[in-house]
Amino acid sequence: MRIQAAEVRGTLEEILAGRGCPADHAAKVALEVTRNSLEGTYTHGINRFPRLVKYIDQGIIHMDVEPILLHAFGALENYDGQLGFGIVNAWACMARAIELASEYGIGCVALRNTNHWLRAATYGYQACGSGMAGLCFTNTLPNMPTWGAVDPRIGNNPLVMAFPWKEGEIIVDMAMSQYSYGALELAEMKGEQMPFAAGFDAEGNLTSDPSAVLKTMRMLPAGFWKGAALSFVLDIFAGSLSLGKTTSEIGKLECEYGVSQTFIAIDFARVAPRQAVDEIIRSAVEDLLASKPDGSARPIVYAGQRMRETRRRNEAKGIPIDERVWEEIISL
Amino acid sequence: MRIQAAEVRGTLEEILAGRGCPADHAAKVALEVTRNSLEGTYTHGINRFPRLVKYIDQGIIHMDVEPILLHAFGALENYDGQLGFGIVNAWACMARAIELASEYGIGCVALRNTNHWLRAATYGYQACGSGMAGLCFTNTLPNMPTWGAVDPRIGNNPLVMAFPWKEGEIIVDMAMSQYSYGALELAEMKGEQMPFAAGFDAEGNLTSDPSAVLKTMRMLPAGFWKGAALSFVLDIFAGSLSLGKTTSEIGKLECEYGVSQTFIAIDFARVAPRQAVDEIIRSAVEDLLASKPDGSARPIVYAGQRMRETRRRNEAKGIPIDERVWEEIISL
Repeated sequence: MRIQAAEVRGTLEEILAGRGCPADHAAKVALEVTRNSLEGTYTHGINRFPRLVKYIDQGIIHMDVEPILLHAFGALENYDGQLGFGIVNAWACMARAIELASEYGIGCVALRNTNHWLRAATYGYQACGSGMAGLCFTNTLPNMPTWGAVDPRIGNNPLVMAFPWKEGEIIVDMAMSQYSYGALELAEMKGEQMPFAAGFDAEGNLTSDPSAVLKTMRMLPAGFWKGAALSFVLDIFAGSLSLGKTTSEIGKLECEYGVSQTFIAIDFARVAPRQAVDEIIRSAVEDLLASKPDGSARPIVYAGQRMRETRRRNEAKGIPIDERVWEEIISL
Repeated sequence: MRIQAAEVRGTLEEILAGRGCPADHAAKVALEVTRNSLEGTYTHGINRFPRLVKYIDQGIIHMDVEPILLHAFGALENYDGQLGFGIVNAWACMARAIELASEYGIGCVALRNTNHWLRAATYGYQACGSGMAGLCFTNTLPNMPTWGAVDPRIGNNPLVMAFPWKEGEIIVDMAMSQYSYGALELAEMKGEQMPFAAGFDAEGNLTSDPSAVLKTMRMLPAGFWKGAALSFVLDIFAGSLSLGKTTSEIGKLECEYGVSQTFIAIDFARVAPRQAVDEIIRSAVEDLLASKPDGSARPIVYAGQRMRETRRRNEAKGIPIDERVWEEIISL
């Protein structure tokens, strides 16, 4: 089924308001959760809303708090998220990084004790919406073994880098596992194999069988040892800059909360005229899109290109939603 | 053969001085090239020195220049490298980012028209040496097809993130290709296969045969579509912030020069006491190293751990050098 974004958003907002959520937070969370699905990130949009409500009902997410400042020095600040909404906290911190960047050219805000920010790209788009480049990352609970290991001790710690361009954002939103658990579960449900190796099976061999990987929990880091190393370093940055929990500490909790994040905004137009930059990007995009296709079904796109097509389609036709998910939501 | 670092360094310095290189630049380049090999990055150390000298002799590298400021706004600046030594330019720009960070908490310097910086990690270690976290990246000539393509239009654009820790740096230095051309050539020479897929063969199938990939030039991005996307976004950041060349523009030149780079330093101790951070990192490192091994020969290490062991060994025994490379160098 397909439902128009406005209806989805209104429904989510009502559910939050019904649980006593402050109006501004309910509006923001409903807006961004809907937008994630509208723009094609279904796993971190509406599909995840029931879990968000569960965390509210369990008292894990505190609906009425804002991040509080811990320390500040020039363009560098860190905050405690007081276990508020992940979306509200992350948005506030990127907004503060943008403020700092408009004063200093670059701003960096670290955040601890926050909750899942849902779609990582949201905060890259936020920076671009203010005409700035953005870089942000989060840690997660341990969900992947490091290279050479069998037990999950590193997170898939998504990294986002986004640069605004007059024809649309250039953006990468990259988790450190080759595939998400959501993608593996979907493929298993459909009885499909993954296109490439997704992890290790019980015998320690690489496999593209989602069931085998869901059994061993031995997800493959993107780029093998490279993704494992980058995941660990992102965790060290996020945990240290915010004086917060690393993936290892999050793993000691009963579920995923209290994560650490970092937000950087760069007001590049202060040193690089916007028109010149637009032209640099246009030329690079044109060259990339002139690549010779390899004959596979893999489309040649620049990072960020496909989101806008999905958004246009979903704006016109409504957001595709699994009926069972929607039934679950309206029963909340 | 093995040669002590001091002898290597002295030899390289003399060769540069003999070509009229200013003494401070000759000393710096000889020091860092030697250190790259001393610390185990042989491909970007002494082995690469003959090519560096060739570029000097061809007038591609200008030995006597320094980066000049283009624009400055608070903690954000960009520079033109005037096609000077890649090492000298990159070091100067990370040094300036460190200065800006000690004033503003974070500093960002972009650099255009520079040459190959050799080992990317050098500038991460540089930030750590000043007690700061560092993040830097460079673009390169086109050496890899984007995802779904056969012709090389993206670079392997190394990304470095480094965090100082009292027991040694936590650092990732990650090129966006799964393997380097150097690694493929070495394996081909030894008649070995790569441990994992390295690229596509002439039929468009993934292969771990180095010869097949060296023939097609279809290197595999680390993490498949993920490494391709991150490579492109790093290129957009580096080219735009510096008003410099993107990978696409570098590809129009007769060889690789005039690349673009970005350097960020974070003086984290201004907002996160060093002792608390050391403890956060210690706990994360201990947890990672307690991982259960998968029974393979792959060692469980944290990012940055192995460099120090290599350095100790090479300091004691001398730097391992291919005799032909050393003969070539002393004939320069």
